[in-house]
Amino acid sequence: MNFAQAILNGDRLALARLLTRVENDTPDGRAALKELFPHTGKAHLIGVTGAPGTGKSSLVNQLALHYRRTEEKRIAIIAVDPSSPFTGGAVLGDRVRMRDLSGDPNVFIRSMASRGSLGGLAQATANLVQVFDAAGFDIIIVETVGAGQSEVDIAGLAHTTLVVEAPGLGDDIQAIKAGILEIADILVVNKADRPGVENTEKALKTMLELAHPTERVFKHHGATMRVTAPKKNENTKMWIPPILRTISTEGTGIPELADAVARHVSHLRTSGEWDSRERIRFEVELEALVRDGLMSRFKEDVPAPAYEKALESVIQRKMSPWEAAASLMNGRQP
Amino acid sequence: MNFAQAILNGDRLALARLLTRVENDTPDGRAALKELFPHTGKAHLIGVTGAPGTGKSSLVNQLALHYRRTEEKRIAIIAVDPSSPFTGGAVLGDRVRMRDLSGDPNVFIRSMASRGSLGGLAQATANLVQVFDAAGFDIIIVETVGAGQSEVDIAGLAHTTLVVEAPGLGDDIQAIKAGILEIADILVVNKADRPGVENTEKALKTMLELAHPTERVFKHHGATMRVTAPKKNENTKMWIPPILRTISTEGTGIPELADAVARHVSHLRTSGEWDSRERIRFEVELEALVRDGLMSRFKEDVPAPAYEKALESVIQRKMSPWEAAASLMNGRQP
Repeated sequence: MNFAQAILNGDRLALARLLTRVENDTPDGRAALKELFPHTGKAHLIGVTGAPGTGKSSLVNQLALHYRRTEEKRIAIIAVDPSSPFTGGAVLGDRVRMRDLSGDPNVFIRSMASRGSLGGLAQATANLVQVFDAAGFDIIIVETVGAGQSEVDIAGLAHTTLVVEAPGLGDDIQAIKAGILEIADILVVNKADRPGVENTEKALKTMLELAHPTERVFKHHGATMRVTAPKKNENTKMWIPPILRTISTEGTGIPELADAVARHVSHLRTSGEWDSRERIRFEVELEALVRDGLMSRFKEDVPAPAYEKALESVIQRKMSPWEAAASLMNGRQP
Repeated sequence: MNFAQAILNGDRLALARLLTRVENDTPDGRAALKELFPHTGKAHLIGVTGAPGTGKSSLVNQLALHYRRTEEKRIAIIAVDPSSPFTGGAVLGDRVRMRDLSGDPNVFIRSMASRGSLGGLAQATANLVQVFDAAGFDIIIVETVGAGQSEVDIAGLAHTTLVVEAPGLGDDIQAIKAGILEIADILVVNKADRPGVENTEKALKTMLELAHPTERVFKHHGATMRVTAPKKNENTKMWIPPILRTISTEGTGIPELADAVARHVSHLRTSGEWDSRERIRFEVELEALVRDGLMSRFKEDVPAPAYEKALESVIQRKMSPWEAAASLMNGRQP
């Protein structure tokens, strides 16, 4: 089966199958990715991140429904939920979604709940995004639990990043969010009918003012990129992340959210930031792939007993880890 | 100044200075680390992790005070708090600690709040631990905010890992903790005088029963290790993580916690797990160092224009990221 051709022809079953192979990083998955890659670059990637309990899955659901009702767009949703291996959160989320979105051939929902491979998860997500992009999906929403650096990495894939908050989750949670706020293009206070919505909004405003990010840091698979924000000048209109209220269970605030997303896309296009975000994304991905490739090659080249011997010297404190690494890289017997 | 010798002689000022250089990865810091390494391997490393608001800093404080009062032990505390760049959490925590622990020459507190370098943070923490170990500190407590994979990595350095929970932080938080529970050797429900303590304890029990970890996954600087737990047999006594209640502000439950830690150490020693945890730690560290070293060398070897050209081909969709990485590694011009 030629996956790439089938997918370019709109074969939904082939798409589902390829997604699995790409997620498992099989050789035919890789081959198809390579063939599909020239057909990518058209989709708008939206990252949605937020702690459990913020209602972000339902928000994504409503946003997708809104797009389906108002625009002729094909939408893919990738739900990444590595943090709840026991509850099967991603699977449950899908079931809830099915009610509203199932049967619509222009919506495709995919969840990933791989455990213990968060670094690999960022790469796998990037690959799934490429498949959907080539398959002609106009909007690809990547939803992650906003709990740590790895989720920030995954959100960093996006052209537009939504950070979802909700009242009543405790002020302590704000502290965790500091790193995530820096990547927010749009802040959403969901469950806005709950008490405390003003406080949540106020806290976000204060944090936004404190943040003033002058550089963005991207980490991906062990690779780090620092990107200094362009200096403010009269020609560069800076994007100030808006804070929006929604009640996703009722659909309240969803049109306004879609509108903010559209304004952000137009900002990205006119400011040239669309291209610079693409460049950063590929820079990070390329470095991650090189790192992995170098390590694989190294493991093929260095005989296992030599590696084991070096490790043993470290454990016995005869050699520091740094010396052992250097000696292995120089091909000397430790 | 010969840092290593000064530190082995108990020079506190030299210790403070070296910690800074090691954290900044300077050449003299590396040289001293190499010299100190043969003197490591004696300290007991305790990792303490938990969300903001669980009161883990105060718990660590109390535990240190308890050790100082009851045993003739030297104690180092490393507070890693990368997640609150705005509040300066680590610094504030230190000030609170100063009241109780300052002036005691056998206690050394060090905080790290580096932003945007979580991968590097795990390595930096490992290096600081080595310095303290060589300097003769018997117990080294590494405290992290339990928010993501990187914190799990850092906690994974420890011989004994304490996961701190508190009532009233919202059930949703439990989901985030799933990955962290797997690394817990001892579970602490702090602020046990708060309402909801039974629910928190019950939730932890349920999750522990669901967890049954058969393998431990360590991620560090992009390297992943899977370690299958030894098969249960009559000779291997499995460690069941106890759940303890504490009220750290009053010191309630601290002696019992210290007791559980002591029982865990004795379990590690008799089961041989002390050695296997050391092996894993060095295995992960060695791989991380090799990965970094290979990448540095690669960047020296490959001319910047060739790298830029490969990246440009990717951005223009002429070549997939995977092809570009392969061509760069094979030294072919893309």
